[in-house]
Amino acid sequence: MCHHCVIEGVKKDMLSRRAFFRGTVAAAGAAALGAAAAPQPLFAQQSMPTKAEDLTHELYDTFPTYFGAQQLFYDQKFNHAEHTFNLFELRLNEHTGTHIDAPLHFTADGKSVAELPVEDLVAPLVVVDIRPKASENADAQVTPDDLKAWTDANGDIPEGAVVAMLSGWGDHVATDKFRNVGDDGKTMHFPGFHVEAAQALMEGPSVKAIAVDTLSLDFGMSPDFIVHNTWLPSGRYGIEAIANLDRLPASGATIVVGAPKIRGGTGGPARIFAMV
Amino acid sequence: MCHHCVIEGVKKDMLSRRAFFRGTVAAAGAAALGAAAAPQPLFAQQSMPTKAEDLTHELYDTFPTYFGAQQLFYDQKFNHAEHTFNLFELRLNEHTGTHIDAPLHFTADGKSVAELPVEDLVAPLVVVDIRPKASENADAQVTPDDLKAWTDANGDIPEGAVVAMLSGWGDHVATDKFRNVGDDGKTMHFPGFHVEAAQALMEGPSVKAIAVDTLSLDFGMSPDFIVHNTWLPSGRYGIEAIANLDRLPASGATIVVGAPKIRGGTGGPARIFAMV
Repeated sequence: MCHHCVIEGVKKDMLSRRAFFRGTVAAAGAAALGAAAAPQPLFAQQSMPTKAEDLTHELYDTFPTYFGAQQLFYDQKFNHAEHTFNLFELRLNEHTGTHIDAPLHFTADGKSVAELPVEDLVAPLVVVDIRPKASENADAQVTPDDLKAWTDANGDIPEGAVVAMLSGWGDHVATDKFRNVGDDGKTMHFPGFHVEAAQALMEGPSVKAIAVDTLSLDFGMSPDFIVHNTWLPSGRYGIEAIANLDRLPASGATIVVGAPKIRGGTGGPARIFAMV
Repeated sequence: MCHHCVIEGVKKDMLSRRAFFRGTVAAAGAAALGAAAAPQPLFAQQSMPTKAEDLTHELYDTFPTYFGAQQLFYDQKFNHAEHTFNLFELRLNEHTGTHIDAPLHFTADGKSVAELPVEDLVAPLVVVDIRPKASENADAQVTPDDLKAWTDANGDIPEGAVVAMLSGWGDHVATDKFRNVGDDGKTMHFPGFHVEAAQALMEGPSVKAIAVDTLSLDFGMSPDFIVHNTWLPSGRYGIEAIANLDRLPASGATIVVGAPKIRGGTGGPARIFAMV
């Protein structure tokens, strides 16, 4: 089936389900709005976190990239034997490794990565586990049904959450399966958010970001970056190639996003923790 | 007075005081050791933090640097008008902006920035305020006396702390006073840690890192990087050009250090928060 047909098929299939989900999220949104006078707690959990999980892949020169070419280069300017200290100059594509997509990445003049408010970098973390379907279908997407399954099991999506896709793709980071190029030699096959899920998350409580454990917010075979073009222009940000979501509960962790504070940056490698 | 004479004079003056401080720190260390069986809490405070302070300066191409030359360069590879998205390739000296010094920076084979354990990146934050003397003397240093004044006022330095110098120099980041080059046209004058204070912090409870709101762990006129050469080879790390310490209490905040996880890196720009 052609890419376009697949996408249209999935869209049509979801429209009926979306209406129900919209109701659920809208209700949650209204509830959150009603409680707006109370200050939002900094952490998602009720009791003090006891552990910090590292949601960051180690970044190295041949870390897999969306475009396929190398995106990090080291140039050693000083070395300990000769100069008594070591120092590298790095050449680095912003969108490499575990990294941020700022609104500016897909807008003419949206917020840069340095302009993301600190309040948006510490948030309740929602982990949507689609590993069962992703293990059977590399083109799986997070759909409104997956969001509904999460709310059925865990209650409303918290106000100001970061919603992350756990597809299990982090296990493939050191292999060709992370990019998973198909028989045509160019189309990639890995999971991502479906635009209907992104749209639903934009309608309800104020979700700050979506995160994926793959190379793109859009699934690999997307021909048009529709999720990037829908989500980022709304002023929200994204996180790509996030790691170790499988160590976290579906609900109750707090994400701390160490986004680089580079003026005018469209994103960049970030150090990300979850407090659990 | 020559640089060497100044340094020797300060050292001599402090030797007597150091013995007292060593006793204090050692006692604290022993107490901490005695309690080693109990798990360390993740956060310094007893109650849930309610606010995240950003301890990171915005990084831009002309951000002041230790060596004086520009250390960040932008190369726009894609632009929204032409390609529907924006993307930069950055060329960046690791030791630029608010950043980490990993042990590898001043050792042949110490820990890289990617090898710093997560447990060392979340820590109780000790803020040593030397603004009164630094405002009168740009060559001021954090001495054992300053550490003793802190413990007199706040109790023992917590096990596993990050100890930060608040000199007030963050206010000068956008001006020539951040580097503060003297009349000789080359020697810089800004505060830093004195090696005796670094040594004292290495003897007592397991301090994970020292941090400064200036361009170097060593004060600007240091001829020999003695603090770098003492502290980093011990396996501990440093933070330079940290911001906004003046918004924090002397004791009770928890620092979260978003160190870049770049394989083999000697340090790098970090996003740093304090949970208060």
